[in-house]
Parts: sequence; structure tokens; C-alpha cells
Amino acid sequence: MRVFIAGIDGYLGWALAQHLLAEGHEVAGADCGLRRRWVEEMGSVSAIPIATMTDRLAGAADRHGSSIAFWQGDLREYELVEEILRTFEPETVVHLGECPSAPYSMIDREHAMFVQTNNLSTTFNLLFGIRDVCPGAHLLKLGTMGEYGTPAVPIPEGFFEIEYRGHRDRLPFPRQAGSWYHWSKVHGSNNVMFASRLWGLRATDVMQGVVFGTRIECMDDDPRLRTRLDFDSSFGTAVNRFCCQAIVGHPLTPYGGGNQKRGFLSLVDSMRCLTLAIENPPAEGEYRVFNQFAQVHAVGELALIVQSVAEEMGLAVDVCHAENPRKELDEHLFEPDNQGLRDLGYEPTRDVPGVIRDMLEDLVPHRARIEASRAVFMPSIRWDGPHQAVDFLQAAPSTA
Amino acid sequence: MRVFIAGIDGYLGWALAQHLLAEGHEVAGADCGLRRRWVEEMGSVSAIPIATMTDRLAGAADRHGSSIAFWQGDLREYELVEEILRTFEPETVVHLGECPSAPYSMIDREHAMFVQTNNLSTTFNLLFGIRDVCPGAHLLKLGTMGEYGTPAVPIPEGFFEIEYRGHRDRLPFPRQAGSWYHWSKVHGSNNVMFASRLWGLRATDVMQGVVFGTRIECMDDDPRLRTRLDFDSSFGTAVNRFCCQAIVGHPLTPYGGGNQKRGFLSLVDSMRCLTLAIENPPAEGEYRVFNQFAQVHAVGELALIVQSVAEEMGLAVDVCHAENPRKELDEHLFEPDNQGLRDLGYEPTRDVPGVIRDMLEDLVPHRARIEASRAVFMPSIRWDGPHQAVDFLQAAPSTA
Repeated sequence: MRVFIAGIDGYLGWALAQHLLAEGHEVAGADCGLRRRWVEEMGSVSAIPIATMTDRLAGAADRHGSSIAFWQGDLREYELVEEILRTFEPETVVHLGECPSAPYSMIDREHAMFVQTNNLSTTFNLLFGIRDVCPGAHLLKLGTMGEYGTPAVPIPEGFFEIEYRGHRDRLPFPRQAGSWYHWSKVHGSNNVMFASRLWGLRATDVMQGVVFGTRIECMDDDPRLRTRLDFDSSFGTAVNRFCCQAIVGHPLTPYGGGNQKRGFLSLVDSMRCLTLAIENPPAEGEYRVFNQFAQVHAVGELALIVQSVAEEMGLAVDVCHAENPRKELDEHLFEPDNQGLRDLGYEPTRDVPGVIRDMLEDLVPHRARIEASRAVFMPSIRWDGPHQAVDFLQAAPSTA
Repeated sequence: MRVFIAGIDGYLGWALAQHLLAEGHEVAGADCGLRRRWVEEMGSVSAIPIATMTDRLAGAADRHGSSIAFWQGDLREYELVEEILRTFEPETVVHLGECPSAPYSMIDREHAMFVQTNNLSTTFNLLFGIRDVCPGAHLLKLGTMGEYGTPAVPIPEGFFEIEYRGHRDRLPFPRQAGSWYHWSKVHGSNNVMFASRLWGLRATDVMQGVVFGTRIECMDDDPRLRTRLDFDSSFGTAVNRFCCQAIVGHPLTPYGGGNQKRGFLSLVDSMRCLTLAIENPPAEGEYRVFNQFAQVHAVGELALIVQSVAEEMGLAVDVCHAENPRKELDEHLFEPDNQGLRDLGYEPTRDVPGVIRDMLEDLVPHRARIEASRAVFMPSIRWDGPHQAVDFLQAAPSTA
């Protein structure tokens, strides 16, 4: 299958490109390097060194024997989108070309506006490009479980059937996002749902949980094939950040009580799920929503797993809760479905400690690199006030 | 009360400014004249001639004895928003500074993108401006009943309490908008709801029905005080367009079966409702939603009322259904609440024929002006395909 990946230089994009090549698909991609610049703006780097896009492409060609067609450019420019779709004629368009950070969107007005308009524009251009150039193509858009927020009812996959005042209907499940970024994903979901209804577009909207992991199998030990791994408080997500903290002996820092429940899945599982969705496209005019995660965990519980695995490997580290810079519930119901992908054959990986062990082993060689940027672990972007680094909620341990 | 009106030069904005002055409030406004340019782009004009902003302001000062502070400029520029809020220190910010046309947003990719980013940016700037300059101010944002679409269950005011799989919650009512414009209003509602939760902002989100009417009382017969009245297929809404059609003997053209039900209210009622919301602001941190309409009517039924009133006045006109350029249900449930404004004392005007009679009387002197632009009555912007003027569904009568 011909798959075009918008945002191929990112954490998921670069892994997906290789996973698809390994599965025998034809891959093209575009990126303008924004993720590298955003992380640099946060004063951080990828824990795992990443190659330039030129070297990445050469490495992929060496490893997989087939090359990736690549466009260096900004998908907010429609002419570029049109050119790519005309040239490559994709059967699937995977939309990873959005800014993926909640804290980044909460920095200030400019960042909030940037994240929402950037994400809106790239989605719009892909939607109209598909309509006008390759209307049979399947749009696979990355959303987030964070679109739903934490309602006091179970979370279905996108839609639910309800009775209300004696009438029944199947309605979109209400979204209650918790950051400007998360709302940008809701705006995008709404636009994709409408485009699908309007033009008969095939669309899959993936409400993805938090992804963790440093590699997928086909990356081998070629440094050109490795994907990035962020640990700063804006682009480093929970488990990835905890693992990097463990490497340098920084306390693991769940926010608040750490009882926030979220869906999580390994990078390997994320690649499997996306590939299942790609290989089993929706019907013409079908807009389907998959909740994509392996298990639900409380964030604090994952910190304890990372601590325990690290200890087995001789890395002693404390778990020390920090002030929560976000505005979110600490205790809440969280019962999301994920039947859609299971129906396509997805079997969640259950060995979370095993994945974390692999991650720590991958990260040990990069201790100095993480150590040099350890200041980025603690967040200073607060949801409701002026920027100021959060404090530990307990006395900071001596290793901090 | 000090009220700042974003989009003061528009159909509702200019009427509201005067209604508020007449009620003794202090009024400021900003506009960059986009509505005039959009209607010009559609090849049309306001049926009722409107004065320049300079003359409007002079007229208002003559009539009401107090002048309106006015900023000529684009609210997509944050510096302007900040300057206005600092200078005027509003207690209420009424957000009418958005592009209000569904067909305009459906022209092509550029227009869709413009409407969504324009509406997103002005809302963002007002939200952040209020947060940073006048955090106690009440934001009154104009949304539309069209945000809800036409679900098969009754429509509450913004939120509903439901039971789902044995759990109960109060959730945002799902939105199912029917155009890029309507979705832009949903995106805006979501952003305002979030800002309110985040910063404790006072906000009223008005889901307004279709407004019709040519004047409010305090406009007298001063042409400088008259508000615009559009009749082109993009900016002219149902009843306003039907009245202009009647004036020049063009068949009244409900789309499709004409059974689409919508909430409607007169311009006078709209002004009353907005003023009630302004004079009764929500509490700090409260985000409230009002469904703002007087009655629910089928569009075809209103065409028949216009026909009948026109006939009484000696204006013979046919009702001749046209192809529906939109993608919408013709037959559907439509049971929206509007208790919130009633609780504040709103009494809907019941005399629809009376309002239509006044409108026709107001429009008769402008017959030549409407006649010169009669080509704009029939829509050519189709929701799902290339632009092409719609046909009558019955044989076009000879008067057409």
C-alpha cells in the first residue's frame, strides 16, 4: 500500500515509516523539522541522538532496500500538499503533522494560537487535498484520548447511543479537553468527521493514549534509524520522562496525587495499531474512531513500575510527587473502550516492565546527554498562572 | 454598563450599539469593514442603504447624546484588542466579530480556512485580552443554534445530564454542525468553555436562531442609524431574503421540501435577549449557554407567511421551492429549550406577520436596489460539488 506520512520526522512518524517499510508498504513523507525546533525552544534535546533527515532516508534505504519519497516543507502550504498527493498518489494519508504538546500550547497566547492554527491548517489542507487529488484515499488522523477528558461515565469510541427525554439517538461523545492543544485535536476531529460526511471521505480518527518506548525491532542498531525520545516537561510524556529521570537519578515526578488514569501503549503497540488501521481501511464515507491504548494505568503507578525495574538494573531512584501544573482531576472514573482495534486483531502487549527494561537499557548509553539537560524535567508552564517551576510535594530527596 | 462590541458595523452589531445607548449604557466598538467587503464579494449590497462608519457614529451621537468610542481595525491583531480593552475598560465584551455565513465558508478551501482561522483568532484574542486586561469582564459570544445540528433528541441549553452504562454525568451536549462556518462556532464555543474553566472567566455563549427584521425602534428615520439587511444567498438569511424576494416579485425559495425546522427571532427580540444577558452577567467562572430564539418554524412555513403578508399589501408572489444546495435533513425532530433567557424575563414576540409587514414597508422604497441585484437570490454554492446555480424544483413561474 502507498502510505504518505505527514510529520515523518517525529517520534511516531519516523518509527511508523520503518514499520511500514518492514511490512512491505511503499512510504512517502513530509516534514519541515518543527518538532526538532520546538524541543530546542524548550531547551532540550532528544535523549537518543537522531540523524538528519538526509541520513535517516539513506539509512532506511540501506536497511529496507526501498527508499522513502520525502518532501522537506510545511504542510500549512496547500500547494505543497497538492504536489505531494499528485506525485505519490497515496492510498493512505497518515496525519502526524500536528504539534503534539499540551504544555507547549499553554505557554502563552502566541503558542496557544500557533498550536491551534497550525493543527487546523495542516488538517484542512490534507482534507481538501484528498478531496481534490485522491478522493479514495484513507485519512488516518492522530487524535488523543485527551479529547475526551475525564467524564464520570465510561468512554465509548467516538459515538454513543443514548436515551434522552424519551428519544434515542447515536451522537458524538462529548469532548472535554484539558489544554489548547487537546482542544485543537477536538477541532480537528470535528472537521474530519464533517468532511467525511460531506464528501464521502474514508477516515479513521485515532484517540491515542500515552505512548512509551525507545524503539521498534527493525531499527536494529543503526543510529540513523533510531527515533527520537523526549524527556522535557513539554514534549516528554510520562513514562518516557520517568525512564530518563531514572537514568540520571532524578526523582520520578508524577504530578499531584498521581492518581490520574490514562490509557497507555508501547511504541511497538502504537505501530501495530496504526498498521492495522492502514491495512483495514474504512468504507467510503465512513468516519470511524478508535481508542488506541493497551491498558489503563494511574500515572503514579507507572512511576512505581519504572522505579522497580530501574532498581533491578541497579539504578536507585526515588518517586517524589510534584505540584501539578495542570488543571485536571486527580481522582476520577476512567473506563474507555478499545474494542475497535481488538476487532481488527490487536493484542495489547501486557509486559510493561519488559518494555521499560528495554527502554532503560537503550537510554543508559545516553546518560551524559540527559544529565546535561536535567533542568527540563520539572515543568514551569502552569495552566492557570505565571510561569514558575513547580515544587516537589514532599521534601526533595538528596539525589535531586 | 460599559459594553464593547466587536463587529459593531454588522447587522446585529450596529443595532445592538443603538439599543444599548437607548437603554443608557456606554458603548464602544471595533470593526474593519469585513462584512461590507464579503457582501460585495458576493456581488450584492445591503437592501437598506447604510451609512459610512463615520456618519453612523455622528448619527448615533446626534440621536442618543452620547458618542461611541470606535476603533477601525482588525481584531485578529492582538495589539489592537489589548489597546481597546485597556482604554475602554469594558464590563461586557460582545463578540460579533466573526464571519457569520455558512455558504461563504463552503465556497472553497481558501474561504473555509479563512472563516475558521478568522473566527478562531478573533475569539482567542478577546479571550486572552480579557484574561490579561479586564479579567472581571463578561464575554458574551454569539454562537448559533446550527452548532447543534438536528439530533433525534431534544436540544438542551449547552449541557445535559445523562445516564450511560450505569453512570450519570452532566456533559456538554454533542454538536453536529453542518458547515465549516457552523463548525468554526463550535470550535469557538469549546475554546470559550475551556477559558472559562481555566481562568474563571464569566462567559455567555448564545446559540442564536435565525434573526429577521429591518429595524429597531430607536433607529427612527435617520438613514445613518439604519442597520444593513442582506438578501444574497450567502449573507441573507431565510426571512430577510424572502422579504426582499417578495418586494421584487421573485418567487420565495425555500430549499428542498422546506420542512427544515429552525429557531427564529426578530431583530427586536435579539436585541432584547442580548441586553438581558448583558444586564444579568454570569458569576465568576460561570460558562452558561442560552438558546436564543422566539419560536421554531419550518422554513417553508415562513415563506408562506411572507407570501400571505405580501399579498395583503398588494405584492403578489409565488412560493417556489428550489434545489437544496446544502447537505441537511429535510424532515427531523427539532425540540430546543430556551428557558435560560425566559428566566431572565424574555417574552418572545409572537406577532411574526406584524414584523414581516414592517419589514416589507421598510423595503418597498428600496425596490430598485434589490432588483438590480436579484441575481444573488439563487445560491450557486453547493455543499458537495462544483458551483452551479440551483434550479427551481417546480416549473419556474413566469414572474421569475
